[in-house]
Amino acid sequence: MKPIIEALKNRYAVKLFDDSKKLTVEQIEDLKAVVNLTASSLGMQPYRVVIIENQKIKEALKPHAYDQAQITTASHLFLFCAHQQIDNAYVDDYMNLISEIRHQSRESLKGYESMVSSFVNSRTKEELEVWASKQAYIGIGNLLTSAAIAGIDACPMEGFDPQAFKEVLNLDKMNLQPLALVALGYKSPEDKYAKLAKVRRSNDTMFMQF
Amino acid sequence: MKPIIEALKNRYAVKLFDDSKKLTVEQIEDLKAVVNLTASSLGMQPYRVVIIENQKIKEALKPHAYDQAQITTASHLFLFCAHQQIDNAYVDDYMNLISEIRHQSRESLKGYESMVSSFVNSRTKEELEVWASKQAYIGIGNLLTSAAIAGIDACPMEGFDPQAFKEVLNLDKMNLQPLALVALGYKSPEDKYAKLAKVRRSNDTMFMQF
Repeated sequence: MKPIIEALKNRYAVKLFDDSKKLTVEQIEDLKAVVNLTASSLGMQPYRVVIIENQKIKEALKPHAYDQAQITTASHLFLFCAHQQIDNAYVDDYMNLISEIRHQSRESLKGYESMVSSFVNSRTKEELEVWASKQAYIGIGNLLTSAAIAGIDACPMEGFDPQAFKEVLNLDKMNLQPLALVALGYKSPEDKYAKLAKVRRSNDTMFMQF
Repeated sequence: MKPIIEALKNRYAVKLFDDSKKLTVEQIEDLKAVVNLTASSLGMQPYRVVIIENQKIKEALKPHAYDQAQITTASHLFLFCAHQQIDNAYVDDYMNLISEIRHQSRESLKGYESMVSSFVNSRTKEELEVWASKQAYIGIGNLLTSAAIAGIDACPMEGFDPQAFKEVLNLDKMNLQPLALVALGYKSPEDKYAKLAKVRRSNDTMFMQF
């Protein structure tokens, strides 16, 4: 586990990327695989990820993210969005997917379907959105760790206007609510944040052990 | 990135651990390091992790987690809890920590402090708890990925009664709200879930690219 810990010690929230360095198509495909393989509650994957490489779109987003340089200097942005329509149709679609991938009849999934449906139907839209958001953040954790190990620099960001992002990206019709983004690329040698010591609580503060 | 992807493909939510196999003290210290190094919004780490190794406590928790076998057969449980008292005192404490670790005066942190304070003070207790919960889930993502790469099996779980867990673990006085737990150890060869194909959305469903 030591190489993982070293990678996590070396990573930091990059504020200025070297905009001449781009991630390759293969790297993006690998990062997509990493995100898609992330665990989620009930296996529901109740979120989606908008990947932005287009420079004009990054420029359009920047003013809605406090004009932060990460937005336009990063190679790619991974914008994590909660899926806002988790309902019986979503469950039905999910059961079809399980049935197809595991070669199981829908009949044999009745028990699981009833459990998942009752989970969904016993929660308000707001509760489901919080639940979906939390699952998305598992994906963010997985992406940040995987990128760090692979030597790709990143900056996770919540500091932007979700409504403005929705408008720029036309997400309204898709029932997607932007939550947080991960800017990815390679840090600029001029990023002054690179040299700051990492601030973390002591283990005694963070953990209790029984 | 291929070895990471392989590890993520091989991991799954273990339902039955081999209870004769325990994680070592060194492994637990490494997993704590991994969690503590996790990125969080504003660097605030607004969550805490209760680690349970004691078998009697696991037995006491089990009925409050639908009697699931992971609870008592896992080597250790990492219970992620939102910190429920994110306030000016918390911010003050955090600024002291930055000041100490980075050898910066509190004066020089005024700008950052004002930003963090206004973030905290402009949100309700409920909003802060949702925000804290999401940060905890980045930690869960990081922990799951790191464990998978290190060959440690895990099961993330939300299916338990947080109130009952609070009572068993005496968390009430500590302002900690249980969110989710990660059971860690080594899977039993009898875990029938090991052989199930992983169900994931297609990339076309999970991602949009611009």
